[in-house]
Amino acid sequence: MHIDIITCLPRLIESPFADSILKRAQAKGLVTVNIIDLRQYATDKHKSVDDYAYGGGAGMVLMIEPIYRCITELKAQRNYDDIIYMSPDGELLKQSIVNELSLKGNLIFLCGHYKGVDERVREHLITREISIGDYVLSGGELAAAVVADAVIRLIPGVLSDETSALTDSFQDNLIAPPVYSRPAVFQGWKVPEILLSGHEARISQWKHEKSLERTLKRRPDLLKE
Amino acid sequence: MHIDIITCLPRLIESPFADSILKRAQAKGLVTVNIIDLRQYATDKHKSVDDYAYGGGAGMVLMIEPIYRCITELKAQRNYDDIIYMSPDGELLKQSIVNELSLKGNLIFLCGHYKGVDERVREHLITREISIGDYVLSGGELAAAVVADAVIRLIPGVLSDETSALTDSFQDNLIAPPVYSRPAVFQGWKVPEILLSGHEARISQWKHEKSLERTLKRRPDLLKE
Repeated sequence: MHIDIITCLPRLIESPFADSILKRAQAKGLVTVNIIDLRQYATDKHKSVDDYAYGGGAGMVLMIEPIYRCITELKAQRNYDDIIYMSPDGELLKQSIVNELSLKGNLIFLCGHYKGVDERVREHLITREISIGDYVLSGGELAAAVVADAVIRLIPGVLSDETSALTDSFQDNLIAPPVYSRPAVFQGWKVPEILLSGHEARISQWKHEKSLERTLKRRPDLLKE
Repeated sequence: MHIDIITCLPRLIESPFADSILKRAQAKGLVTVNIIDLRQYATDKHKSVDDYAYGGGAGMVLMIEPIYRCITELKAQRNYDDIIYMSPDGELLKQSIVNELSLKGNLIFLCGHYKGVDERVREHLITREISIGDYVLSGGELAAAVVADAVIRLIPGVLSDETSALTDSFQDNLIAPPVYSRPAVFQGWKVPEILLSGHEARISQWKHEKSLERTLKRRPDLLKE
């Protein structure tokens, strides 16, 4: 998989890709992540990528021209499955979309910033719009990093133990059961005895019950999907 | 506002706080963000913070003891409004929760990693659990950065133009209207004429209509809240 992330603030998301799972996935050659500085595609000597909004109002807008030049150059290099704009009014991200994206080959993520991008970018250059939730961020950078992280960890070989991702929350429309580690008693707080029993079948049954119980209590909506 | 973020991978989220709006907010003294390395609170010479899960199964679990030591030390220094665990089965983040958190004084964000934290941490040490959406990430680090970014930008004085945040999506249960910037015509694609007209009242009316139209088309659920 190849991911290009276009942003006017590339330094913002350097570190999430330079450590831990995302770093190892790149080192193993399972994914390449290319963070592109939109300012490289500016057309003036000040490297401007934003300007005032037509019609007035607070907040700057990312101009179409640098974005057009950037995406045109990228598209000349490879075919993209999707050119995704991160926006709070996009399609709401959920695990099934993450699963779907993890099967793609080449993706572009365009990060808005300030009041967003010129609407003509969304009409003519973007193939898909994704939101990570119903809240507003300073820009699309963290949102793009969130999607990339969720997607990349599902690529076979990225997680050291592949069964780990399959027992995550949401993969069965169920929330994961509680987990415990050493010590068995801490400050008087005990690990449930069943987990120390060694009875594999009973432990598995307990986990499933806790999973269902937690889903019913916290997210009954997931069971209706 | 003071925010402590507890993580076993502090480098992962260094950069989002070291640039742009989050950097300026700290420089202006409007917020302090302290990224705490959980390994400092490990009790063995290998600085272990995770161990196998009781009852078996894939994935490691963050142990209670280092987390307990860390939170206990922090609580001795100041009173916290909330000790928040980032978890996909927590309360789903939305703008109204962001608004509420932006009024708090001191917050701790605890980032899970691997299969999460020992359940006793959630039962005894945490006051609130928040999820940024129905998908699974490698850890809570990006989720904590997302919440911090959404919250910090609302603190008065952080955004250079305060009216900017008030016209964001969701603040009126409405999605923001489309925005445009120069040039007025690009590749034959034109900015709507009304925005070039200079008629302030009509432009304002147009924006409101577009906002409603877009909300009805993309997120009619917001209008029912």
